[in-house]
Amino acid sequence: MYLNKSLQEYLGDLASDRPTPGGGSTAALSGAMGAALTCMVARLTLGKADYAQVQPEIESIIERAEWLRTRFQQLIQADIEAYGQLSACFKLPRATSEEKTARTKAIQERLVEAALVPLEMAERAAELIWCCQRVAEIGNKNVLSDIGVAATLALAAGSGASWMVKTNIQILKDQARANELNARLQTALETISAGRQQVIDKIGERS
Amino acid sequence: MYLNKSLQEYLGDLASDRPTPGGGSTAALSGAMGAALTCMVARLTLGKADYAQVQPEIESIIERAEWLRTRFQQLIQADIEAYGQLSACFKLPRATSEEKTARTKAIQERLVEAALVPLEMAERAAELIWCCQRVAEIGNKNVLSDIGVAATLALAAGSGASWMVKTNIQILKDQARANELNARLQTALETISAGRQQVIDKIGERS
Repeated sequence: MYLNKSLQEYLGDLASDRPTPGGGSTAALSGAMGAALTCMVARLTLGKADYAQVQPEIESIIERAEWLRTRFQQLIQADIEAYGQLSACFKLPRATSEEKTARTKAIQERLVEAALVPLEMAERAAELIWCCQRVAEIGNKNVLSDIGVAATLALAAGSGASWMVKTNIQILKDQARANELNARLQTALETISAGRQQVIDKIGERS
Repeated sequence: MYLNKSLQEYLGDLASDRPTPGGGSTAALSGAMGAALTCMVARLTLGKADYAQVQPEIESIIERAEWLRTRFQQLIQADIEAYGQLSACFKLPRATSEEKTARTKAIQERLVEAALVPLEMAERAAELIWCCQRVAEIGNKNVLSDIGVAATLALAAGSGASWMVKTNIQILKDQARANELNARLQTALETISAGRQQVIDKIGERS
């Protein structure tokens, strides 16, 4: 589990020429950092007299953002595992035509899995940006710049993950499945982009 | 040193209501991940026959990107320290006019330091995007999506850091200094934005 390793060790392994960890894990970690910062700003709004009216909503946002943080943390590992399994399929023997068929089938199956993990990151980042929007609207005015950073990280999670989704569906033979995954990706990216702009606008208004 | 702590512990502390770590450290970690991914793609180009002609340049890019990774890793801690010291100044006593004057002077001095650390992140991210551009142009075609993610992370580092620079220079009384820091920030952000677009275009051409 990378979550239990040090930042130094993770970054060192990322920089190495080993297939994992790679870009997908960085997108998940960006999402986890964005969710964590959203929790921080929400917690700095808790118990403050000026924000008495929004306490119940802030509490539910913390619950939601903590759930997203946990999920992004799991996705760091899920991406490493899905990509590792795909990598292993590319190394299967292809001397005979039976081997070639088996290898192609294994790769095609694993490609979908390797695309679904970063796709979930983009969809979770779209959920996260909604939390950022509400915190930008009702959260502690003194730490709004941190919610701006959180929205930047949600965008990085979605945008980073989109590279990994695309690279996998590019070689997927099931075109209907590829189109479906791509449509889901585009919906998530549009939600994130529009939501981030709303966060920026709201911070501008309240500063 | 946060670098020696686990991802889990870092993310947990980030989500807490303690003043550090905060948004600045996440921008530095984004930069460190972007530099690490750039190293990975460059290393996967080393020793490959198809890329024989670019080996010397790839080696120098690895050296540069590893230097940037180390610097971003140091900036994670530098940001935590600079922000911690600024936070401490805000808690200084202000009962007498002497105390008030001393507190204001201490805050104003620390504000510059707290702005310079994220400003350096944005400027290093501008250097990183240059490495990403060259790797997108000459690197291993099979792992170009990872250099796309690296460029996304460089943007997140610059964009995230810009929130922290702005929040500090907003209350800086030395207007000339504030303008100088803001001009440096804008230059870095423009370089990153233009460079990232070039990375995207180059990946599109070579895919």
